[in-house]
Amino acid sequence: MKKPLILVTNDDGITAPGLRTLINIMNKIGDVVVVAPDSPQSGMGHAITINDTLYCKKEKIDDGPQTEYSISGTPADCVKFAVRKILDKKPDLCVSGINHGANSSINVIYSGTMSAAVEAGIEGIKSIGFSLLNYNWDADFKPCEEYITKICKNVLSQKKQDLILNVNFPSNTKQFKGIKVCRQAKGYWQDTYDKRISPLGKEYYWLTGEFINKDSNKETDEWALSQGYVSLVPVSFDMTAYDDLDDLKNWKFN
Amino acid sequence: MKKPLILVTNDDGITAPGLRTLINIMNKIGDVVVVAPDSPQSGMGHAITINDTLYCKKEKIDDGPQTEYSISGTPADCVKFAVRKILDKKPDLCVSGINHGANSSINVIYSGTMSAAVEAGIEGIKSIGFSLLNYNWDADFKPCEEYITKICKNVLSQKKQDLILNVNFPSNTKQFKGIKVCRQAKGYWQDTYDKRISPLGKEYYWLTGEFINKDSNKETDEWALSQGYVSLVPVSFDMTAYDDLDDLKNWKFN
Repeated sequence: MKKPLILVTNDDGITAPGLRTLINIMNKIGDVVVVAPDSPQSGMGHAITINDTLYCKKEKIDDGPQTEYSISGTPADCVKFAVRKILDKKPDLCVSGINHGANSSINVIYSGTMSAAVEAGIEGIKSIGFSLLNYNWDADFKPCEEYITKICKNVLSQKKQDLILNVNFPSNTKQFKGIKVCRQAKGYWQDTYDKRISPLGKEYYWLTGEFINKDSNKETDEWALSQGYVSLVPVSFDMTAYDDLDDLKNWKFN
Repeated sequence: MKKPLILVTNDDGITAPGLRTLINIMNKIGDVVVVAPDSPQSGMGHAITINDTLYCKKEKIDDGPQTEYSISGTPADCVKFAVRKILDKKPDLCVSGINHGANSSINVIYSGTMSAAVEAGIEGIKSIGFSLLNYNWDADFKPCEEYITKICKNVLSQKKQDLILNVNFPSNTKQFKGIKVCRQAKGYWQDTYDKRISPLGKEYYWLTGEFINKDSNKETDEWALSQGYVSLVPVSFDMTAYDDLDDLKNWKFN
């Protein structure tokens, strides 16, 4: 059987340990092309580069069989550029990550990792974003391997083409209890701004904050992760609030 | 009756004519605080600034009664910073725009204008993004005024707090036929990369492209706009693909 073509990207940049782990896993499943940002792109949401130029560089980071390119842009740029300029045919799968840090709940909307997966979905490519709830650069990704292999093989075997998955792994990698299919929990970031003074006396700020989960429902990703499950949320790029449509049609606008 | 507090922002930057028009309209409805990017932020999607510092500057651009600040960040940063650091109380409404260019269909996901509205929605603030299907810096925004006033007053009068609207105006501003409540059309960008050579001989690319509408349904924003209607799409930040949930629960993962 012909090996599947797999596009691999991330938002932490082409040298990130999470990406290197994902490349190693994908090399056992298919033919791998890596197109990843040349610098960290966390929090870039679904940004694309339209007011600046883009550079593309062939890379050789390690001894694996994969082909690699770095792009001077965002994760969404990487997927667009890969599809239009690098790949000869549409890939069978796009995987993004493994992100160093959570992309559960509302984080899906700020996440560069997930924007790459969503961009692939818009292009009609099955895609999966993987994230580990551990921000450490030397986090242990080993226990994720078995799950990632299982999920990717399962997705590759499905006839359904329109499929975007957001997969998060709990931080305690010793205790994965299995996979839970769930919905995005309702939550938000209680932001704080850390004010500092530059050497020249100018005020500036760093955005920090704390995630607030407003949703105790057991059908959510936050609940699954808190219980030690790997969470799997199907993602849509149709942002229409269908629940509001009928109500709005009754408003007296005209 | 107490005047509503209105937060105004955009993605084209604090001096953009579309923003100045929106400020003038809002000054007739409520007390206006402007917190907008200090530079163009088109295509920034839901990016937030977490790997860089933020600056905030008090601005005085024209003679209106509004209070104004510029931020060295993205539209989503502007809303977060306004809510946490500038405003004494939660605004009654956040409006973003008027964008110079379309944010209908899949553009909602790339749009800085809409990311500001969505961020306000996440914060529990009613919000509306306005966009005109005309990229010209000197586009005629005057005919939008009557519609913007009507929509904002209507939204302010609603008890419902969770409301994010994506409003687009057709490019032919002489012929608005009224408002159509619709869903996001299915579509994508057929990207092209314009390759050039720098003075030092290095290859670089500009992203350009053409929007492809895959959806001829009359319930969509693209149809409404093509017929001369103002399109109004309610927007959700829950990206769960609910249609896929039950199907996925039957997959043999564990």
